[in-house]
Amino acid sequence: MPITVSAAFDSGNIEVLRADGPQAIDLAIRKDAHSDFYQWFYFRLSGARGEACRVRITNCAGSAYPGGWPDYRAVVSTDRQTWTRTETSYADGILTIDVTPAADSIWIAYFAPYTMERHHDLIARIAAAPGVTTRVLGTTLDGQDLDCIDIAGGPLQVWLYARQHPGETMAEYWMEGAFDRLIDAADPVATALRAKASFHIIPNMNPDGSRRGHLRTNAVGANLNREWAGPTLDRSPEVVHALAAMDATGADFTMDVHGDESLPHNFIAGFEGIPKITDRQLGLLGDYKAILARLSPDFQTRIGYPPSAPGRANLTMSTNQLANRFGCLAMTLEMPFKDAAENPDPVAGWSPERCRALGRDCLAALLEVVDRLR
Amino acid sequence: MPITVSAAFDSGNIEVLRADGPQAIDLAIRKDAHSDFYQWFYFRLSGARGEACRVRITNCAGSAYPGGWPDYRAVVSTDRQTWTRTETSYADGILTIDVTPAADSIWIAYFAPYTMERHHDLIARIAAAPGVTTRVLGTTLDGQDLDCIDIAGGPLQVWLYARQHPGETMAEYWMEGAFDRLIDAADPVATALRAKASFHIIPNMNPDGSRRGHLRTNAVGANLNREWAGPTLDRSPEVVHALAAMDATGADFTMDVHGDESLPHNFIAGFEGIPKITDRQLGLLGDYKAILARLSPDFQTRIGYPPSAPGRANLTMSTNQLANRFGCLAMTLEMPFKDAAENPDPVAGWSPERCRALGRDCLAALLEVVDRLR
Amino acid sequence: MPITVSAAFDSGNIEVLRADGPQAIDLAIRKDAHSDFYQWFYFRLSGARGEACRVRITNCAGSAYPGGWPDYRAVVSTDRQTWTRTETSYADGILTIDVTPAADSIWIAYFAPYTMERHHDLIARIAAAPGVTTRVLGTTLDGQDLDCIDIAGGPLQVWLYARQHPGETMAEYWMEGAFDRLIDAADPVATALRAKASFHIIPNMNPDGSRRGHLRTNAVGANLNREWAGPTLDRSPEVVHALAAMDATGADFTMDVHGDESLPHNFIAGFEGIPKITDRQLGLLGDYKAILARLSPDFQTRIGYPPSAPGRANLTMSTNQLANRFGCLAMTLEMPFKDAAENPDPVAGWSPERCRALGRDCLAALLEVVDRLR
Amino acid sequence: MPITVSAAFDSGNIEVLRADGPQAIDLAIRKDAHSDFYQWFYFRLSGARGEACRVRITNCAGSAYPGGWPDYRAVVSTDRQTWTRTETSYADGILTIDVTPAADSIWIAYFAPYTMERHHDLIARIAAAPGVTTRVLGTTLDGQDLDCIDIAGGPLQVWLYARQHPGETMAEYWMEGAFDRLIDAADPVATALRAKASFHIIPNMNPDGSRRGHLRTNAVGANLNREWAGPTLDRSPEVVHALAAMDATGADFTMDVHGDESLPHNFIAGFEGIPKITDRQLGLLGDYKAILARLSPDFQTRIGYPPSAPGRANLTMSTNQLANRFGCLAMTLEMPFKDAAENPDPVAGWSPERCRALGRDCLAALLEVVDRLR
Repeated sequence: MPITVSAAFDSGNIEVLRADGPQAIDLAIRKDAHSDFYQWFYFRLSGARGEACRVRITNCAGSAYPGGWPDYRAVVSTDRQTWTRTETSYADGILTIDVTPAADSIWIAYFAPYTMERHHDLIARIAAAPGVTTRVLGTTLDGQDLDCIDIAGGPLQVWLYARQHPGETMAEYWMEGAFDRLIDAADPVATALRAKASFHIIPNMNPDGSRRGHLRTNAVGANLNREWAGPTLDRSPEVVHALAAMDATGADFTMDVHGDESLPHNFIAGFEGIPKITDRQLGLLGDYKAILARLSPDFQTRIGYPPSAPGRANLTMSTNQLANRFGCLAMTLEMPFKDAAENPDPVAGWSPERCRALGRDCLAALLEVVDRLR
Repeated sequence: MPITVSAAFDSGNIEVLRADGPQAIDLAIRKDAHSDFYQWFYFRLSGARGEACRVRITNCAGSAYPGGWPDYRAVVSTDRQTWTRTETSYADGILTIDVTPAADSIWIAYFAPYTMERHHDLIARIAAAPGVTTRVLGTTLDGQDLDCIDIAGGPLQVWLYARQHPGETMAEYWMEGAFDRLIDAADPVATALRAKASFHIIPNMNPDGSRRGHLRTNAVGANLNREWAGPTLDRSPEVVHALAAMDATGADFTMDVHGDESLPHNFIAGFEGIPKITDRQLGLLGDYKAILARLSPDFQTRIGYPPSAPGRANLTMSTNQLANRFGCLAMTLEMPFKDAAENPDPVAGWSPERCRALGRDCLAALLEVVDRLR
Repeated sequence: MPITVSAAFDSGNIEVLRADGPQAIDLAIRKDAHSDFYQWFYFRLSGARGEACRVRITNCAGSAYPGGWPDYRAVVSTDRQTWTRTETSYADGILTIDVTPAADSIWIAYFAPYTMERHHDLIARIAAAPGVTTRVLGTTLDGQDLDCIDIAGGPLQVWLYARQHPGETMAEYWMEGAFDRLIDAADPVATALRAKASFHIIPNMNPDGSRRGHLRTNAVGANLNREWAGPTLDRSPEVVHALAAMDATGADFTMDVHGDESLPHNFIAGFEGIPKITDRQLGLLGDYKAILARLSPDFQTRIGYPPSAPGRANLTMSTNQLANRFGCLAMTLEMPFKDAAENPDPVAGWSPERCRALGRDCLAALLEVVDRLR
Repeated sequence: MPITVSAAFDSGNIEVLRADGPQAIDLAIRKDAHSDFYQWFYFRLSGARGEACRVRITNCAGSAYPGGWPDYRAVVSTDRQTWTRTETSYADGILTIDVTPAADSIWIAYFAPYTMERHHDLIARIAAAPGVTTRVLGTTLDGQDLDCIDIAGGPLQVWLYARQHPGETMAEYWMEGAFDRLIDAADPVATALRAKASFHIIPNMNPDGSRRGHLRTNAVGANLNREWAGPTLDRSPEVVHALAAMDATGADFTMDVHGDESLPHNFIAGFEGIPKITDRQLGLLGDYKAILARLSPDFQTRIGYPPSAPGRANLTMSTNQLANRFGCLAMTLEMPFKDAAENPDPVAGWSPERCRALGRDCLAALLEVVDRLR
């Protein structure tokens, strides 16, 4: 049986250079459309059950984050539900994935994929819960819906949003954890939070990049998290629509959920360099991070991005923009593509299940600061 | 909240002419690429929960089967799993769908959709059963895998294939029923069949048309069921690959699974006009139809397509081609888009669940003729 | 860790003679209360994970059906849901079960148990289906409910009942298959049957024997299937109540579902020796058996009980009593404790899943004779 | 259809005084065997679908905790899985339950029942998780297994045990939450806890009382939580076996899980009056309670039992005995039969789902003190 590799499906991305035998599979990652970014891959490998396969992705030196490849291990699934890590190495710009397929077809990806079909399923499922409404904030350039889920509650306004960078699929798994907690009528944290705050959640800011199998940009090559200072309908309608909705409610707490290609840690980036910064904001930021680190052994505060210098924050990034715009606690949560070094899991690495757990814990941390948000 | 309609997702198809209010939603069905065929629609409607909506599809007069619209009712889902019929009428070339959405977003389609994501899930699930292998017969013009599932068994060769016409999604639901039975170790029909026959199953002959939201053709506008006399890699690689695989095993029984837009009945079309016809073949055909009618109250033999005259069979159609090529019992099973008039279900009409039941029963009927196949 | 054996739970039955080590486990089956019948066993074995255990049941020579032990294999479960066969031998009145427990506790039984808790769950689940009502026909001597499920339908009256002999748990698994089919709105056989007939189903005629872990009798030692000529409230209230309910509706078809300890076959026993026998009844009986044998490779007509001679039928048995009383088609279905020799399954033997499949097929067979029942 | 009431099933308890019509249902609660305690009830009511029923339990004045009846509402289920509260009032020693059954049979109880069958299912399920072993500590007077689940981990020894009082079923639901967290490989709290501590868990200390439908005692009328000073095999083998197992490992943390009939609160009772009390123990106790109150809005520290005076602790109670014996942090967790006044749920009241959530949170609180336990 010949070996085949394909990626022409929802969120797929790979180019086949050759597939001449189990040890002769050379692939390349396609660039995001109208962009030089690339790092996300997701493909199906067929015809090699039980054979030791060596899959080489040959164009990794030029990818967006070459620092992401050392110590990285690819994820593999036979059932499209459970994803485990497989032996992977990086040298000379080539990522080499070694896997002996346990089934006639397997799926291999940079991280557990989160397709737009799964996104629609999520919207439909959460929409059925009491107190939940969903709305389409606007239309993407590919004609997809930009979905927002509103969960009715108290006067505080909490905004959670994810996948500005579509290849950071962990961010939408995090959303599943947050949603599951918020709609759980038996969860006392959820009950208490909803008594105090209303939630507005955009689980996927970048449907076009997601469906196209992009790493970082939308259909026209825009990095949405560099568009918040002056988004336009031509280039970044996703941000135009999200920002308009945020302006309509105001915001007391915002969290932008991401993945980081290089750092094997969960961490939070803040807004230290914004012009209108207040001590109150900074105090809340420090407290939130410390509380989350106490609640979740998967989270830490030791390693992260260096804060920007006073007045030097990049206001095209959403967290800076929103912290400055609303005077609120705003954060960027980063999760690893690799594993969390604090609590490594050799089988799954950082995984969808752990993203969900962190989503739950971020809400528990929110409860501990919620009374001080306004 | 504005009303929005979108279809930029796996298997979606609609064009929005206007969506100015619940009573002012005008849509058109896009043609299959490089083709004049169109009839399949699948879209999401948001922003109208609880409002009486009138959705008009205005270009139905020119669709492939205008006779399919009278007495037809569209299907609607809030959870993307359960599809029920909604009030629908047809006049003056306009299909009018009346629905009061029970959720902020609902999905509306010509028949319960069967996406390529669901197809991949099916492949992965069935592949895990004992005795099952899956293989990629070849690659489609859009770069998708043409999947074949082989179920090991006795010396007879049974070929089942579906969705040459991608909009006939009922055909792949039928496959789910057939698969579920065949891999059920506690099912005595399956055990007995597998002792006598090996199964080769192509659950979706037309992945490209499926993902693109086509009614009837592949990525270049080819109607695959008119390609069996001389398929080419440029125009109909799906048929090239399927036929090569059939030639490799031979065939003792073939069933091509379809949907019919107009007739509210389940029925079987045969191969009466093929050049090499034998009485044995004709006898088996009649017997199979009678047995299935006895087993399944949803199936009937009274209404169907008129048989072709002696020697006048169209050998570009798979059933004729295969009956003639292999001297075997070959059939085209047709299921309704509407309902089965013999046993109407006012809520669901003809439904995925009933397709699955018919898939099971077609195997029971096969068991009753299997010893006479060769 | 010491080895322990216990049976003090719903449907459990065993007496521990000694449990001194993995090779020194001697047990005895308790007799049914007020009776000399015994053969059903169901117990939990703990503390021997990974050790080769030899479990000896030492009083099998005096059990109700010593002929049931040769070629019999006990069932074992670690999850209490999946039951597989384990190595078992019989000699000198001792049944020897060899098993290496895959878990710290395992459950071992004569056949997959069907507890009264599962029975209540069944009642609650089926009761929720459209057109279903449940009623308590009366109270058993232990104070349990005798449940009857009525499924509304056409004018014919179909009665199905099971577990007169409580240790024949396969009979209630059969009921699950029958129920699942009857309440499946997408099943055309069910739809057609319900258009013609109303169903009255007693899934467990003997709750007291079931909960007590009996083989064959109720709380006072009565063999219910010898009570139909003159049941009394003191001795066989189960039959009093069932017969009263049958008299209230009449019966056009009755099926009494059983297990047979000795014969490795599914078969049907009739009513050949009843006084009022008619050719019509006998014709229906023969036809039903032949149809079922055609539909289900698990069923056969070659081996079974010898029919009683003309006029010599035992009218204390339900099938004879009801065939004579109502002039209807009445049957006793027997399933094996061992395996079905026609279609053996070395892993599961005859199993709950196969019972369910036969329950479905018995309804399909009913559809083929239903128009001739009255 | 006559109305029937029955309780002859696993964990059932009621006596029928009369059931003469929907407004004439008078019942009494049976006493625990060899005891005067009674308060637990669990019965099935059939034959009154859609009729307004008034169920009177007439002997409540003499029950164990008459203070439990005011403001109490009984739970009702149609599917035996979801339990909701129904209108209930108490006056003159009579508890009056008003319910209009939504099904032909409904089940009514003092709190969501937790049968021994469910207990066995729990054992089997948890036993399958990695790192888990189960063992039978000994045999009860009715011949049931006393189950202990051990979860391998670090050097600290944590003991959790529940249902000394069998009618306090919430305690075993709490155990489900604790187990689910502990065996969740993606839960960072569980991973961190298991790195530091081994867990020994007795999810049901009183199988005999549970299966018999008792409130407070075992098969011979012993209140197990008054047996810890000198348990005997004749009267309290459950405590003999548990204490021996605890002595074998020692204990650094113990939690005894209970329900309280009267107080509508979750709270913790300590060991203030034990002879060997230390400031370290008292400090840990106070800290644990404060942490849990911070983590779970369902828990509070304002209301609870008055602490015993110095040196006056009752050492027959497990928490006092173990705190004194091991010098460890020991606690009795009490959950309400009614609702948690801090966070009331008018539909479910305090519920199995909320018990599970509290079980999870108690482990999160444990993580915050675990490094100080020894």
